[in-house]
Amino acid sequence: MLHFDQEITALKERLLTTASKATNAVNKSIKSLVDRDDDLARSVQHEDDELDQLEIEIDEMSVGLLSKAPLASDLRFITAAMKISHDLERVGDEATKIARRSVELSQEPQLKPYVDIPRMTRMGAEMMADALDAFVNRNPEKARAVIPRDKEVDLLNKQLHRELASYMVERPATISRCLNLMVISKSLERIADHATNIAEEVVYLYEAKDIRHSGKGKTA
Amino acid sequence: MLHFDQEITALKERLLTTASKATNAVNKSIKSLVDRDDDLARSVQHEDDELDQLEIEIDEMSVGLLSKAPLASDLRFITAAMKISHDLERVGDEATKIARRSVELSQEPQLKPYVDIPRMTRMGAEMMADALDAFVNRNPEKARAVIPRDKEVDLLNKQLHRELASYMVERPATISRCLNLMVISKSLERIADHATNIAEEVVYLYEAKDIRHSGKGKTA
Repeated sequence: MLHFDQEITALKERLLTTASKATNAVNKSIKSLVDRDDDLARSVQHEDDELDQLEIEIDEMSVGLLSKAPLASDLRFITAAMKISHDLERVGDEATKIARRSVELSQEPQLKPYVDIPRMTRMGAEMMADALDAFVNRNPEKARAVIPRDKEVDLLNKQLHRELASYMVERPATISRCLNLMVISKSLERIADHATNIAEEVVYLYEAKDIRHSGKGKTA
Repeated sequence: MLHFDQEITALKERLLTTASKATNAVNKSIKSLVDRDDDLARSVQHEDDELDQLEIEIDEMSVGLLSKAPLASDLRFITAAMKISHDLERVGDEATKIARRSVELSQEPQLKPYVDIPRMTRMGAEMMADALDAFVNRNPEKARAVIPRDKEVDLLNKQLHRELASYMVERPATISRCLNLMVISKSLERIADHATNIAEEVVYLYEAKDIRHSGKGKTA
């Protein structure tokens, strides 16, 4: 049987694997959109299944560890890991949703070059990477810096929605494509939300200050 | 200091309060849509703030209880409570989203009588009530029965989306209203998802069988 600290390290590693798989799934789904590559889009489902399994695994590891945790701070760490893993699994769901819409979009001519969508994707991936890094390296400041970036992604999503909505009015023939792009944009916005949840969780964990629900980033 | 069992009872009660507030918030948001009542819509934000606070409170109670839990089954119960409380908080977010769209919709003439939307609302509320009842009364069978009902809500959402999409094509002047109704319908679908998450959590808790991610309701 492993020592408690070794198991905690194993849990961290499992989470990092999950995070990189989640980001990979999102990148693939967006690449399938940009390259109009249906095979790539369909392969995202496989990543999503793996993420589902990883969530279950992390849950099992965590419950096992909770009974051995010597300190309250360990309990918080483990419950934070469970929450983070849930957020990552949800990122996988969003990637699958994007991939599905990408397949639908590739059946019609492309509406316009994609600029904001790859940008939102990059921003989300960076937020996710920073939040996870803050988690494993006990860096609440880095986590805190993730939170305001959510607003930028929100803004891009809103702009794109407005743009697509007026496009629909002008050219009703584009409605189904616009709706698919709206769903994708919303998914990317939600991925940034998950990164923000993780960052807030990390601040709470290491500063014992609950900044969730306090106006996204302001301290309560 | 309270006895462990008393604290578990207090935790259950807190969760039930949260659940009834969440359902209340959703009902209010839909009533504000149907009655075109902006004041009522704006009052939903208050409920959502309370739900945010309740989530934090339940988290605190849970972490406190984890360190005293004598059995692995207690640990599972407490982590399940944390997850359920998170789902309930998200239901509150959806209610706020619905209320916001309801205010936008009341600025234009009503598109058509609402039939499917109140129906989806009722279905979601019933699923939520059953899942919570299954949780507090240790009834995995009741929880299991919630899960297939998610498909019915999904179907209603898809039908409504299709209907609204063709409406938009025929009458571009209705596009902004249709988009708002699509968002509301999607929110109701997501509320049913949260009820399903809770139900799956309850089955896992009492049958130690993880049925999440196994094709919604089929056992793995």
